[in-house]
Amino acid sequence: MTGNIYDYDSAVARYLEAWNAGEPQALAKAVAAAWTADGSYTDPLADVRGHEQIAAVIAGAHQQFPGFSFRLCGAVDGHHDTARFGWELVNDVDGSAPVAGFDVITLDGEGRIRQVLGFLDRVPAQA
Amino acid sequence: MTGNIYDYDSAVARYLEAWNAGEPQALAKAVAAAWTADGSYTDPLADVRGHEQIAAVIAGAHQQFPGFSFRLCGAVDGHHDTARFGWELVNDVDGSAPVAGFDVITLDGEGRIRQVLGFLDRVPAQA
Repeated sequence: MTGNIYDYDSAVARYLEAWNAGEPQALAKAVAAAWTADGSYTDPLADVRGHEQIAAVIAGAHQQFPGFSFRLCGAVDGHHDTARFGWELVNDVDGSAPVAGFDVITLDGEGRIRQVLGFLDRVPAQA
Repeated sequence: MTGNIYDYDSAVARYLEAWNAGEPQALAKAVAAAWTADGSYTDPLADVRGHEQIAAVIAGAHQQFPGFSFRLCGAVDGHHDTARFGWELVNDVDGSAPVAGFDVITLDGEGRIRQVLGFLDRVPAQA
């Protein structure tokens, strides 16, 4: 990376690319690009570490919500090695967004994610 | 602690007690009760670790905002070893709250804070 060692927007873009990567090989590559090797992901439903476990959580979300995409919701607010942002899980056909959440990430010096602390703001009534 | 090893409300209560502790000895004691020995605090204006440095940041906030108190704003939302919550800095005389923020904390097995990642939602126009 050049310039700002903490490029929050790029880190979040790689993070959402990983969440939207469907095919297993593409998913593995996107996860490795977004997270450090021992990076972690914790939300109300998961608490995992390392690329393999993170990819498995993402693949599970795709199974649960086929035809949906993760999208950034609002701006990324970063300082030091950390940033916060909201996201929505959007139905690719009708644009509805039954799930919304909020994540705080911490980055290493190369902009890869060391830690995700995730929370849910909106979940389906019947989930 | 008894019962739930992650008592988010109690951890946040101790955290805000520390932010509202004025006298140096009381502040040191409250910080030690809220944070682990090597606990960290990072917000847009500070990035410190350990009880002494954390107490210094809190004392600095008191100097900047004499006659104000930190108060929880809304509910504490916790899962695993982490929780999020909002807070306001309230004028003890007129009840105005010129500063508001949002923190994510992670806890150790005894409910003491290992890490605070803090963000600001509202700051004084002339700060």
